[in-house]
Amino acid sequence: MRSVNLVLAGFGHVGRAFFDIVREKSELCRRAYGLDLRFRAVFKSQGVFYTGRALRPTDILRNEAPWLDGNPAWKPGLLLHEVLTAAEPGCLVECTPSNLKTGEPALGYMTQAFDHAWNVVAASKGALVVAFKKLRWMASRRRLALKFSGATAAALPTLDISLFALAGAEIQEIQGILNGTSNYILTRMEEGSPYKEALREAQARGIAEPDPTLDVGGWDTAAKILLIANSVLDLEYSLDEVAVEGIAGLAPRDIKKSRSEGRALKLLGTCSRTSTAEPWRLAVKPQAIPVAHPLAGVSGTNKGITFRTDTMGSITVTGGGSDPRATGAAVLKDIINIYRPPN
Amino acid sequence: MRSVNLVLAGFGHVGRAFFDIVREKSELCRRAYGLDLRFRAVFKSQGVFYTGRALRPTDILRNEAPWLDGNPAWKPGLLLHEVLTAAEPGCLVECTPSNLKTGEPALGYMTQAFDHAWNVVAASKGALVVAFKKLRWMASRRRLALKFSGATAAALPTLDISLFALAGAEIQEIQGILNGTSNYILTRMEEGSPYKEALREAQARGIAEPDPTLDVGGWDTAAKILLIANSVLDLEYSLDEVAVEGIAGLAPRDIKKSRSEGRALKLLGTCSRTSTAEPWRLAVKPQAIPVAHPLAGVSGTNKGITFRTDTMGSITVTGGGSDPRATGAAVLKDIINIYRPPN
Repeated sequence: MRSVNLVLAGFGHVGRAFFDIVREKSELCRRAYGLDLRFRAVFKSQGVFYTGRALRPTDILRNEAPWLDGNPAWKPGLLLHEVLTAAEPGCLVECTPSNLKTGEPALGYMTQAFDHAWNVVAASKGALVVAFKKLRWMASRRRLALKFSGATAAALPTLDISLFALAGAEIQEIQGILNGTSNYILTRMEEGSPYKEALREAQARGIAEPDPTLDVGGWDTAAKILLIANSVLDLEYSLDEVAVEGIAGLAPRDIKKSRSEGRALKLLGTCSRTSTAEPWRLAVKPQAIPVAHPLAGVSGTNKGITFRTDTMGSITVTGGGSDPRATGAAVLKDIINIYRPPN
Repeated sequence: MRSVNLVLAGFGHVGRAFFDIVREKSELCRRAYGLDLRFRAVFKSQGVFYTGRALRPTDILRNEAPWLDGNPAWKPGLLLHEVLTAAEPGCLVECTPSNLKTGEPALGYMTQAFDHAWNVVAASKGALVVAFKKLRWMASRRRLALKFSGATAAALPTLDISLFALAGAEIQEIQGILNGTSNYILTRMEEGSPYKEALREAQARGIAEPDPTLDVGGWDTAAKILLIANSVLDLEYSLDEVAVEGIAGLAPRDIKKSRSEGRALKLLGTCSRTSTAEPWRLAVKPQAIPVAHPLAGVSGTNKGITFRTDTMGSITVTGGGSDPRATGAAVLKDIINIYRPPN
């Protein structure tokens, strides 16, 4: 049995879901992977739960008010580096809100983790979008893991497929439906709703945010295809090098036209080049794909990604939950794959 | 740079394709994965290419007649264990023809490999179908790798998805279109051909064997779902515990009926149970699935597999080449994933 120290940064929807999944899967992790996952600390915006010991989720929740003043384990002023230096290095689990402009607070957290020889599993995109080159360098220099399945389409295994299942193949093109909200809106438009009505409905159902810009403007898709491409193709592109066009300008007639031509209109994030001598081009835009395309049937809040390769043909993976629970499960998956015994 | 000794057993379509891919990807393996793949020996049915040194494919092919009498490296009587004991343990690459009844000659080869502390990557199904329990035990007892992506639907990453990308999730159901030949015939029947005509056409195009029983009778699918289920769900089922029904009895009216009900008729290999208290049931039979099912659009010689999970939703992967080259690439993938450095 291998003990793994975890420090969880961020206890919003995803952080909390991850915490609950570790609780739920504690026995499975021990039995199937020989891993005993323990929390050294949980960082929330107002303070830190920290006892100096490695705790199971149940040990933390057993306490009636784990996050409140008056609980001796609740340390409002404790800093991350104090926690990281006080324990055997393990894995920082980064679940703070994504900030695509500054990358903070995740960037500072992840940098400190690598400085103290901790691995990092990230669920948020900000730091990876802003500073992937630096973070990848910090990790590889010390042979530490930097994994972020949860930041690249939640439970849809975009990186596992490309980095693991396609090892040794040359990836020649990537096309992905990577944002569930905009795909839901497009699906509803295909069923007859005008854009504004479909958006309102998505908002009413909690699928779209009150400010939907990130999703419908294509920026969430852009961040994901950027992370996937930089990671899989060993690139160093930045977000402003992605040509981004969202779905807000689409009218029902665009959808109808596509259908009448035997095509489906999808918001695709793509990474392609015309020849191996050319640079890769990253783009996000609505595209009419043939109905026989393996992504054409991806409807509603579902997502999917296709990799075209030289030796293995085209491989498409679709589905996978998009809720915080699925993202939390993707984070746990990354941790297991870092620490599980080989073979 | 890590040197990896390979012994290739079997030089038919798949063995040869694997050999060619190693030659083609030699530089990539060094640069991207830090692996220097070398052949210690190549076993063919009539003899062995063996020089006592670890050779690159180009070193073997440089010789004008590598497999012929008169070449001092061609050793008709050399035995596998002589080769295995003479070198630093590496990986046996098992590409001999599948024999679903005896598992031989693969079973003997794989057993010897484990006895001499070699890892095994298998492309053929026979030994795994006949003796998976024993082989898994031999490998795990010595912490050796036993991988067989190429035997479970070629480049379609059935095992990578379930064992790696879904780590920590509970797999609740598996459904797969795992045989390209029968899926091709069903697709042609859907387009109007009677069964016999579709089969003849598949045979004429080299998709179906002259004796198509393994494919159209469902046995190839049965072997694959058996291997996937035993591996992923840690079962010990044998082939005679799979309920197998092929496509030979289907008439165009069955297909038409499915279509008129908004369904697609597919030959599915399934692993399911009604509750966690029940035993898993493995079955192969033609099933009418809703057109919205993610496998409904898998047509022609394509394959696909869906895993339903507790925490990550349903995940489907489709596509992937089925030819010897794709299988060879899947074998190389397994080798890379055994030996690549962590992180």
